[in-house]
Amino acid sequence: MLNRLAIEQLEKRRRAALINCLPGFKSVVLVGTVDSQGDTNLCVVNSCFHVGASPALLGMIIRPAPEGTERHTLDNILSTQHYSLNAVSSTMAQRAHHTSARFRRDQSEFDECGFEPTTIDGTPAPFVSDSPLKIGLRLQEHQLLAVNGTHLVIGSVEQLSFANNVWRDDGTLDLTGMDLVAGAGLDGYHDVGSGRRFAYAKPDNAPREI
Amino acid sequence: MLNRLAIEQLEKRRRAALINCLPGFKSVVLVGTVDSQGDTNLCVVNSCFHVGASPALLGMIIRPAPEGTERHTLDNILSTQHYSLNAVSSTMAQRAHHTSARFRRDQSEFDECGFEPTTIDGTPAPFVSDSPLKIGLRLQEHQLLAVNGTHLVIGSVEQLSFANNVWRDDGTLDLTGMDLVAGAGLDGYHDVGSGRRFAYAKPDNAPREI
Repeated sequence: MLNRLAIEQLEKRRRAALINCLPGFKSVVLVGTVDSQGDTNLCVVNSCFHVGASPALLGMIIRPAPEGTERHTLDNILSTQHYSLNAVSSTMAQRAHHTSARFRRDQSEFDECGFEPTTIDGTPAPFVSDSPLKIGLRLQEHQLLAVNGTHLVIGSVEQLSFANNVWRDDGTLDLTGMDLVAGAGLDGYHDVGSGRRFAYAKPDNAPREI
Repeated sequence: MLNRLAIEQLEKRRRAALINCLPGFKSVVLVGTVDSQGDTNLCVVNSCFHVGASPALLGMIIRPAPEGTERHTLDNILSTQHYSLNAVSSTMAQRAHHTSARFRRDQSEFDECGFEPTTIDGTPAPFVSDSPLKIGLRLQEHQLLAVNGTHLVIGSVEQLSFANNVWRDDGTLDLTGMDLVAGAGLDGYHDVGSGRRFAYAKPDNAPREI
């Protein structure tokens, strides 16, 4: 058992590695943005989460990195109000991780990491052409969290693009059919096997598998 | 391609199913709490995310469900300031999903869904005995998000419990070694294969596998 003091006393990189593993397997997406000069930016983020379905809202956390690529992303979102989230498939994982390097503002991670940008429906934010699930968002809420000065960014879903054959009749997406990876910590990308789904849960019985 | 209007026009359950799939594979944890009478509560949550490593902070979104189990969870967190997050392994998945049923306040999901509660280090929140990764948190920030009235809850990590053999020398946890599942949408629980890890990314080269 580690208590708070023992956690604080861990060497900085070990502590970051440990704490980033605590949510378990997690979302990993590429955030696409553009600045006012038209320069594109792409950044891997593993803190994307569901905020609401009606209206459709997604949130993410962005660190206040003084020189990191993430500041370019935040600056671009704040100035254009638009950004894209692009799901990461197995063949994209190594290139997606490369976007976490500290590229200069005049370098585009699309070019440097081998992704082709594409546009959807005239929205300004660039999408990742080979991502099987592309989500266009408009900024709805931005705040500096008092607790540690990180940025909370929430956007509304304005465009959605995916292949017809991964959309099931009940509305769910076949994430394994898209070959999406699950994130682990700061540097892990895991292939995911077929899963089990359970019926809407009721108090009296264990939910049946569907 | 679906635009915002097409998304809004989807039937309510189909829309919720679709939008909940957008983050891709995601974190799934059981939140353990206790009320002022000592009655325990357990609730599956799939919106847990990393907020910071120093201090160690985790966030989650809780819906304003008028009669749902999640309100019990939120009430308990606000009144006791303590809660636990318990990672979900493959053998726990069906029982974890069962906790999403609308149990009465006087029913404990620990009893009803087949989980044994345990305590750690004298903290009031109950932990799930058979979870391979138990996290004790103290409430640090709670706010109603203006954008849609959901609750953002951020806590500091006060206790951590896991087996020694899943903690690597570099600080990361072996999530597959713990047999953790990845969540999909509202009802999917996927087994995860061994992953790839990539070195700290630098601009000039594609990150090597480690």
